[in-house]
Amino acid sequence: MTADQGTARDLARLSINQETVKQWSLPELAEGCTALGIGSVGLWRAPVQEYGVRDAAALMREHGLAVTSLCRGGFFTASDPARRAEALADNRAAIDEAAMLGTDTLVLVSGGLSEGERDIAAARERVADAIGALVPYAAEHGVRLAIEPLHPMFASDRCVVSTLGQALDIAERFAPEHVGVVVDTYHLWWDDRAEAGIARAGGSGRIASFQVADWVTPLPEGVLLGRGQLGDGCVDLRGLRVRADEAGYRGQVEVEIFNPGLWARDGAEVLAEVADRYRRHVL
Amino acid sequence: MTADQGTARDLARLSINQETVKQWSLPELAEGCTALGIGSVGLWRAPVQEYGVRDAAALMREHGLAVTSLCRGGFFTASDPARRAEALADNRAAIDEAAMLGTDTLVLVSGGLSEGERDIAAARERVADAIGALVPYAAEHGVRLAIEPLHPMFASDRCVVSTLGQALDIAERFAPEHVGVVVDTYHLWWDDRAEAGIARAGGSGRIASFQVADWVTPLPEGVLLGRGQLGDGCVDLRGLRVRADEAGYRGQVEVEIFNPGLWARDGAEVLAEVADRYRRHVL
Repeated sequence: MTADQGTARDLARLSINQETVKQWSLPELAEGCTALGIGSVGLWRAPVQEYGVRDAAALMREHGLAVTSLCRGGFFTASDPARRAEALADNRAAIDEAAMLGTDTLVLVSGGLSEGERDIAAARERVADAIGALVPYAAEHGVRLAIEPLHPMFASDRCVVSTLGQALDIAERFAPEHVGVVVDTYHLWWDDRAEAGIARAGGSGRIASFQVADWVTPLPEGVLLGRGQLGDGCVDLRGLRVRADEAGYRGQVEVEIFNPGLWARDGAEVLAEVADRYRRHVL
Repeated sequence: MTADQGTARDLARLSINQETVKQWSLPELAEGCTALGIGSVGLWRAPVQEYGVRDAAALMREHGLAVTSLCRGGFFTASDPARRAEALADNRAAIDEAAMLGTDTLVLVSGGLSEGERDIAAARERVADAIGALVPYAAEHGVRLAIEPLHPMFASDRCVVSTLGQALDIAERFAPEHVGVVVDTYHLWWDDRAEAGIARAGGSGRIASFQVADWVTPLPEGVLLGRGQLGDGCVDLRGLRVRADEAGYRGQVEVEIFNPGLWARDGAEVLAEVADRYRRHVL
């Protein structure tokens, strides 16, 4: 076996979420991943729409790249009927786009509280209702809805689903082939129930996506762009990946890091560093 | 009944944590609270030490003010033996100070991970060990150790105890008169297990302190000073206070808001606003 073959085999499960190298266009992403022997990517709706969904799908196919997930649907906690209907329509469009891109996973960031709302349990129930409304359409299009619990620091303004346990409580109202969950180390590492949640999710085949990023402090203003490069923080990335494997997960490991420090650097250099860190801290 | 009597009765359970009006000296705090008919305060070690612990205790007594809690002990997650011994010594000093101030409650902010550590379960176990080492000394001095779970966004650098459930798992290794928990709405509002935790804590007489602050976004850089004035955010403050009452809690409700916007204003104006918000959103 040559070093290159070893490298390629090491990276067989690695997927690069495009936000990790946001400085790159879609063609740069496709070429950069191919050059490193990385075979899958996670995509975001806005840059894909800008490039053209069909063109993006063709570009990925030409490079032999699998699309592990599309981010994101969700933001459907509005209680106002008109805004709820708008959100559902937008989620149907996201399902269409996922199907066109050939991915079976639409990541859902559920949304926060309504203006002035103080009842987070009710908002979580609206999430379950919206998912119920979307399941038939998603199932028709071969797309699984993947509920992503976000760190509790996002509970009010971005995602009322804060733990894997909460995500599973909603997902388990539906068939596992239609609704799964996202296990993202950044959001779940602090939770002493995360391992039990991973076992529960894996046992029922509901891990739709496994994403990795590290936790570093101080958090920046707004806290959205504070994710750390793999190995720079305190998350037991390998430990959590092993737990998912033990629970029966066989899918890709998607690196999703929002970090302006990485975006300011050369994309190829960042991607090589991600691959190296993946080998050292996740594999 | 006059309006003033109504006012005084309304504020009977209100305690003002001195950090809420950090712009005030201890004498200003004592006078300001007395003027509004507020009968209790929560104090912090650093300003109390600066003023002199005995003098601070005398000042509070002269104004007829009860001290509901002293913040803070804790920060005892160091694995290095010398640093652990230092932390325990500092906690014994905090116990001495609490006893001198006449409060039976020392709030513990447990501390974060050690440099380079990726095992949060081990760090939590070191918290339990340290508390075990401190209990006899605290009990001798009539001081109860009150474990405060902090929001999970502080898990790596400030407090590895993130939920009321985790705090109770540690507290319940000891007698309830020696180790209790702090229920702070800011840290716990997002948790769907918080209500069950409050019932569990109240049922065993372990609610040592009930603190209120509201959750507002965007969070500032570092996230420490982002707490909201009561009623400005999304926390069901009254609902959580009622749950604590139902669980048998009869103690004070301490307002602890770290907010530079409040600190920039006139202290008396802020205190009057806090009292008004307390009536409208907590009482």
